[in-house]
Amino acid sequence: MTLVLHDYWRSGTSYRTRIALNLKGVAYDRVTHDLRMGEQSAADYLALQPQGLVPALEVRPGFVIPQSVAILEWLEETYPEPPLLPRDPDERALVRAMCAVIGSDIHPLNNLRVLKQLKDMGHKQDEIDGWARKWIVASFAALDRMIGTYGSSHASGATPTLADCYLVPQVYSARRFGTDLSPYDNLMAAYDAAMAHPAVIAAHPDRQPDAVPSD
Amino acid sequence: MTLVLHDYWRSGTSYRTRIALNLKGVAYDRVTHDLRMGEQSAADYLALQPQGLVPALEVRPGFVIPQSVAILEWLEETYPEPPLLPRDPDERALVRAMCAVIGSDIHPLNNLRVLKQLKDMGHKQDEIDGWARKWIVASFAALDRMIGTYGSSHASGATPTLADCYLVPQVYSARRFGTDLSPYDNLMAAYDAAMAHPAVIAAHPDRQPDAVPSD
Repeated sequence: MTLVLHDYWRSGTSYRTRIALNLKGVAYDRVTHDLRMGEQSAADYLALQPQGLVPALEVRPGFVIPQSVAILEWLEETYPEPPLLPRDPDERALVRAMCAVIGSDIHPLNNLRVLKQLKDMGHKQDEIDGWARKWIVASFAALDRMIGTYGSSHASGATPTLADCYLVPQVYSARRFGTDLSPYDNLMAAYDAAMAHPAVIAAHPDRQPDAVPSD
Repeated sequence: MTLVLHDYWRSGTSYRTRIALNLKGVAYDRVTHDLRMGEQSAADYLALQPQGLVPALEVRPGFVIPQSVAILEWLEETYPEPPLLPRDPDERALVRAMCAVIGSDIHPLNNLRVLKQLKDMGHKQDEIDGWARKWIVASFAALDRMIGTYGSSHASGATPTLADCYLVPQVYSARRFGTDLSPYDNLMAAYDAAMAHPAVIAAHPDRQPDAVPSD
């Protein structure tokens, strides 16, 4: 069967997964779950992804991969061309570290369920946006330095890697929260380079059929 | 040179890295950075790990791997025996997904810098503990189900994997926050099985020379 990506247009982890699928040139169908309507908590989706989180990749009946990091590593192992990780284990480690700066230290703190929780705890929108920016700024300086050291035209080297799959959605998110991106020259140069790829462009949230760009 | 692990006794990401190093039987020296004293923000450490976060693995002069997930994958690639990931790509994906349930959806929300930020935003200790438990409970039910499906004596199959490296410190943390662990039979059985390994026992925070167990 064709791979089925369960996602949501604006989810950063969904966006990074779409970029990887597109860079690999792997065909997939898309089933969207509206996070703002709580559709990810419907019983039929919980049967596929017990956390009720997107994305999840349905490979075949009975085999669903939850968690973007697991999906991306599986894609790299199952569809090795074009590679999104270097061959050398040391270089691979540095790409994965860049991914984790975003995937562990920024995004988990800024996703919809967490911002909703802060709202439920009585925080106003400007405090919530400040929270989001705080974690972005805390890690973007380090990421900018890593890209300056290990990047060439892209975040790591001269071709797209998993680091770019993570970077592009995180810059999109940073802009939504009104982050000043002017201090991050290396990071933004890598972002601009990644955004020149048709595969990356096609993954943009606004290009998905379920997008509500004015939202 | 001998590998040098930069860590902190109670850090969950440090704990998971020590477990993996011990399961691999890889010798390492340990340099601890007291997070409560802000030692991770010292200039000499920032030169090694620009985010000022632990753990980081210093492999040789000039090559330091930040981020536990990158360290663990590098260990698996560089020291393949005993394997901490299955051989089959589909099974590997499920182990990595279990790791990410903890590594992306629980731990990043509950670490020291985040809890400190909540305190700075005016929340009392019981609200902060409730925040921590909320994310644990939100994902432990799903993780328990995954372990019930894919586990045998351990979280995935009958030997320790990276999933166990993540699980053990997360249970330790869950107990510190007063989480009721009685609903998670499969998860706790896997935890108990992992805790029977001398390599896992030796990685426990209280066994580290910098530990302050009464803290």
